[in-house]
Amino acid sequence: MRKVAIVSWATTQFVKDSKLNVFELGCEACAKILHSTDFDKQDLDAVLLSSCTTEQYSSTIISEMLGLSPKVSQRVDNLCNSGTNAVANAYSLIASEMCELALVVGAEKADSTGNKLLWDITRGSFMFPVHWAAIFAKAHMRKYGTTEEQMAMIAVKNRKNATKNPNALFRTAVTIEQVMNSRKVADPVKLLDCSAPCDGASAVLLASDRIAGRMTDNPVWIKGIGQKTTSASFANSTNDLTTIESAKSAARDAYEMSHLGPESIDVAEVHDAFTILEILAMEDLGFQEKGGKIRRNGGIKVNPRGGILGCGHPVGATGVAQVAEIASQLSGKAGGSQVSGCKHGLVHNLAAAGSSATVIIMGR
Amino acid sequence: MRKVAIVSWATTQFVKDSKLNVFELGCEACAKILHSTDFDKQDLDAVLLSSCTTEQYSSTIISEMLGLSPKVSQRVDNLCNSGTNAVANAYSLIASEMCELALVVGAEKADSTGNKLLWDITRGSFMFPVHWAAIFAKAHMRKYGTTEEQMAMIAVKNRKNATKNPNALFRTAVTIEQVMNSRKVADPVKLLDCSAPCDGASAVLLASDRIAGRMTDNPVWIKGIGQKTTSASFANSTNDLTTIESAKSAARDAYEMSHLGPESIDVAEVHDAFTILEILAMEDLGFQEKGGKIRRNGGIKVNPRGGILGCGHPVGATGVAQVAEIASQLSGKAGGSQVSGCKHGLVHNLAAAGSSATVIIMGR
Repeated sequence: MRKVAIVSWATTQFVKDSKLNVFELGCEACAKILHSTDFDKQDLDAVLLSSCTTEQYSSTIISEMLGLSPKVSQRVDNLCNSGTNAVANAYSLIASEMCELALVVGAEKADSTGNKLLWDITRGSFMFPVHWAAIFAKAHMRKYGTTEEQMAMIAVKNRKNATKNPNALFRTAVTIEQVMNSRKVADPVKLLDCSAPCDGASAVLLASDRIAGRMTDNPVWIKGIGQKTTSASFANSTNDLTTIESAKSAARDAYEMSHLGPESIDVAEVHDAFTILEILAMEDLGFQEKGGKIRRNGGIKVNPRGGILGCGHPVGATGVAQVAEIASQLSGKAGGSQVSGCKHGLVHNLAAAGSSATVIIMGR
Repeated sequence: MRKVAIVSWATTQFVKDSKLNVFELGCEACAKILHSTDFDKQDLDAVLLSSCTTEQYSSTIISEMLGLSPKVSQRVDNLCNSGTNAVANAYSLIASEMCELALVVGAEKADSTGNKLLWDITRGSFMFPVHWAAIFAKAHMRKYGTTEEQMAMIAVKNRKNATKNPNALFRTAVTIEQVMNSRKVADPVKLLDCSAPCDGASAVLLASDRIAGRMTDNPVWIKGIGQKTTSASFANSTNDLTTIESAKSAARDAYEMSHLGPESIDVAEVHDAFTILEILAMEDLGFQEKGGKIRRNGGIKVNPRGGILGCGHPVGATGVAQVAEIASQLSGKAGGSQVSGCKHGLVHNLAAAGSSATVIIMGR
């Protein structure tokens, strides 16, 4: 099987109320790659757009705006999990020898319909994602004695990390007191436990082992991918409200494919749209045992770019930005956020109450 | 590289004003496969939905409605080319060993936004697909002396074929005179030169060579796939208005991958949303020379299910239905439409003025 590397990446600033539309945002991220990476546009085989936009033919429109004529052009949509799905597709196109070089771009506007889950009638009147986050948090508190302060510490850590990320939406740190005193949105979840929808884009360029060496001295290899869909609706997503079953399943497959285990991972981007989700992720990925009252990351640095809590959440772009961050870390180009000496990294992404998950393991 | 087979398929009736929504239509096609094919639902690795619906998480919703929990679930959108894109993705997921068994479903309602090309400002006031069909037709008439009667003959053939297809939208034959006397929509294209948007769904089940034999005695193998995107807009789609450059490029790649040429193809489904497009397809695929005044199909049977002209055009479902038809033909299960003794078949699909194309070659 052909090996697949990430050879270039770029992320726009994540902002509220960008004047750019979803196509222009996507182009901004891609243009950075096209300008910074040495390859012939004619050799680009695929443009995969991850977005929840309702615009049709949108990957092809972005291709034309960039002067690209790829073989494969398509939009991939699977809510918050879209970006990681698109990266997995690009991996598969290259590994199967359908393509040699594939550009994945995630782009989203804050008002995307991807932020609404109106179809999920199992939620009853509890229409917003924060409602299921509150249910997960309450269950974890009941079963493991997890405290609101422990959740708040996740926000404090990720917001602090985001202060070093020039692309993050939130560039100011917050204190535990600020999180604890922020407005309750859905008990026990407070405003600063929540991420914010925003505008942004991120792109990554994937290449086969035949050509990766021409584009970079420092390719980051995709070692393992796991994906799982348990349901679309919240009510069917999990039998145990203190774990995300799709993420556990995806992690198991990704570890197996990569021949690596959680102990080998040095740096991870995990889906922290709400603080409780980072706690669940640490457990589901095997980074810490369930219910350990003192939650430490051990040797693993988690969400060094600031995660979704610090960076903001442009739905279709998030998964791509996570992959870009881990590629950046593993190639030693993460600037002020650099985790020193990291060799293996992991991306964990979810959609809609954890009803689907993707885990991608990368290494130098 | 692992080989990939089509082991099962099903298509709903294509109708106007179905009472089913896009999810229910998709489920109807998939349920036929689930009921008729012997496999464990747990073993289904992927559900790929091809649709231009603006509904989010739609592949995952269909998965849940069917009681499926696949690893990979995503929607693929690339206008009329979506269905063939999704089949190519499923091929790539299996060939790359990411999946063993993948269900592709195309589903669309007639009022899909996929029928509108409002973003293409290069069309000026000529907003509808029929306008570019008229431009292609006029150019072909000028350069090759093609006549309106020759175009009308395509409609007559495909509508005749559709009378034998119980799922076709149009089950009545038309005469050359009826086509010629039908209302002019955009000179020289008349109403009966045009396909009709409609509601419908189609699904195909793809399996690796490791497991295909357990599900069928008669697998149909995917031998070659070619894809090409020249642009999104009409103005940039082609330099020569008498050919579809994306289709020529896709055909070249598919023939190369399959080690087959046009002379080996016994049966083909080609994109005939307008009659002129079947003439262009015959030429672009190498089935006949450009500008031959007497257009004969030679030994190749084209659009035996009735094509898009006879079956109707549920945008995201069309590419999947084309693949289902060729699989049906090659396994000798095409009933009244059966082309006897066919060994190799081809699917040709386009989007938006031929700005993108997919060609898939299949064989026993």
